[in-house]
Amino acid sequence: MTASTNGLVLALAGGVGGAKLALGLSRVLLPDRLAIVVNTGDDEQFHGLHVSPDLDTMTYTLSGLYNPETGWGIDGDSFETLQMLNRLGADTWFNLGSRDFAMHIRRTELLAQGLSLSQVTSQLTAHLGIDHPIIPMSDQPVRTVLDTDEGTLSMQEYFVKRRAEPAVRAISYVGAQDAQPSPGFVSALESASAIIVCPSNPFLSVAPILAVPGIRDAMAEHHVPRVAVSPIVGGAAVRGPAGKIMQELGADVSAVGVAREYREICDVLVLDSQDADLEEAVRTEGVGAAVMPTIMQTDEDKIQLAERVLALVADLENRK
Amino acid sequence: MTASTNGLVLALAGGVGGAKLALGLSRVLLPDRLAIVVNTGDDEQFHGLHVSPDLDTMTYTLSGLYNPETGWGIDGDSFETLQMLNRLGADTWFNLGSRDFAMHIRRTELLAQGLSLSQVTSQLTAHLGIDHPIIPMSDQPVRTVLDTDEGTLSMQEYFVKRRAEPAVRAISYVGAQDAQPSPGFVSALESASAIIVCPSNPFLSVAPILAVPGIRDAMAEHHVPRVAVSPIVGGAAVRGPAGKIMQELGADVSAVGVAREYREICDVLVLDSQDADLEEAVRTEGVGAAVMPTIMQTDEDKIQLAERVLALVADLENRK
Repeated sequence: MTASTNGLVLALAGGVGGAKLALGLSRVLLPDRLAIVVNTGDDEQFHGLHVSPDLDTMTYTLSGLYNPETGWGIDGDSFETLQMLNRLGADTWFNLGSRDFAMHIRRTELLAQGLSLSQVTSQLTAHLGIDHPIIPMSDQPVRTVLDTDEGTLSMQEYFVKRRAEPAVRAISYVGAQDAQPSPGFVSALESASAIIVCPSNPFLSVAPILAVPGIRDAMAEHHVPRVAVSPIVGGAAVRGPAGKIMQELGADVSAVGVAREYREICDVLVLDSQDADLEEAVRTEGVGAAVMPTIMQTDEDKIQLAERVLALVADLENRK
Repeated sequence: MTASTNGLVLALAGGVGGAKLALGLSRVLLPDRLAIVVNTGDDEQFHGLHVSPDLDTMTYTLSGLYNPETGWGIDGDSFETLQMLNRLGADTWFNLGSRDFAMHIRRTELLAQGLSLSQVTSQLTAHLGIDHPIIPMSDQPVRTVLDTDEGTLSMQEYFVKRRAEPAVRAISYVGAQDAQPSPGFVSALESASAIIVCPSNPFLSVAPILAVPGIRDAMAEHHVPRVAVSPIVGGAAVRGPAGKIMQELGADVSAVGVAREYREICDVLVLDSQDADLEEAVRTEGVGAAVMPTIMQTDEDKIQLAERVLALVADLENRK
């Protein structure tokens, strides 16, 4: 285990890629040393239930329930409930497993009782034996909306229903200006001695978090080591539509493009070993660069990347 | 197939026993000749979802989905969703299957969209291929509440959670005075040329229907043949706690006790063959009596009882 900062590590994450690094961090850092703040811009009502895809991916990953084949959902889950909903005339393009439904049912019930999304998440993750805090970025609704050549689509409509095929022209984070960072996010930001931006989609996972009022500025002005891991490797996204979207929005589909997006909010961008040749170009963007293997297949990969990133954080701390 | 009235048959029913006769009737009468009005006094919110146990039992029975072992729920259903809800800290004493959950999720969603319970039921049953109208007694909440030696219990708390063990002192139908009969019930009552009270619990299934304002009077004043099938056979309920409750409330646990309850609203009470000796005692209560086999195991039994009851109706019609 690597020596690293003694304070609190704040990790920002979206879906599957972010959850992988968060799992690694959770194996290396004790629960009071790690706060995982998760994007809720993908949240959506399905069948009258509040579904939080990124919170659930994080929860299933950290509880060991996750399906390693898909990255989302619960391993071995059935789709009986969804199939029956389909028979009953519901529109069932969004895959939800039968055990997965329990999460959405319980979340919706507790929200209706007046608990905040933070309180609900804390309660549900505790019941699944997760000791590390998983914190929604905001308790108010922020919804990532894509302006595409097929019209305006919610994140899940774009990503799941339309399989990320429409061309994206612009992205907005509806509700962000009226939202506040969740209490846990505010307190983690205040006490953080390091910030790690996990390898998640810069536009669909990290940007919604930064769009919550005060967060981008707080991140920009923070004096602690701030390290981001590039989700773009070898000119393409490791997973998901990040590459396609960056291209459609005119960004450079490379770690250099990621560095441009994160310039204000990170000190060092971690590049994958196969992008070692981009180190100089990243530095030209005004962001430090570090090269290491970032592809996470096994739990061992996740823990190793977490340890290497924490070593980088410790190194930055010593230099400050 | 037996000749019978040419008009509309209105059947009143509660749970499993009622659904059995309703299935028989639905095999003998075309959809425009039968209206099935179902008790909603057992409805309850579970996990924030609107559960209508008697509507569901009727729906699963008529669609062929029902579990012949239990009488309730869907045959072959799993309990994955419920088990996960339990893991998430929910109180899961009420059994709900994973496919069954789809019904409650969809019902709750459509009710939240502003549809009435009648409209929702009509939509859901149509999707399951049911042609005969299944009609909730009211679109407003009426809740059967039991005053017991363990305090006040809802119908499901009493029946499922406490396994019908507490002694019942009194039963009330909360909300009844502010409820109205559903539009389908009103119209079926107006055009009915016969009324059949299915073999359901007089206090827990039929009484809530009669408690809806105007229904008891309309039934009492109706001039069409009104036939009820006794749910008490051989001094005990065929199924469920009807016998125990009748005893605790000081009623005679026999077809005679049932006749007393139904005196105002029925012309003829159907007694099971093994209660043939009670025929005279029933007549003494001011109710006609007819004796036939009423125990329904197979679908053939259900169809035979339906045919015999319809023949009785036709006979009464000819005599009027």
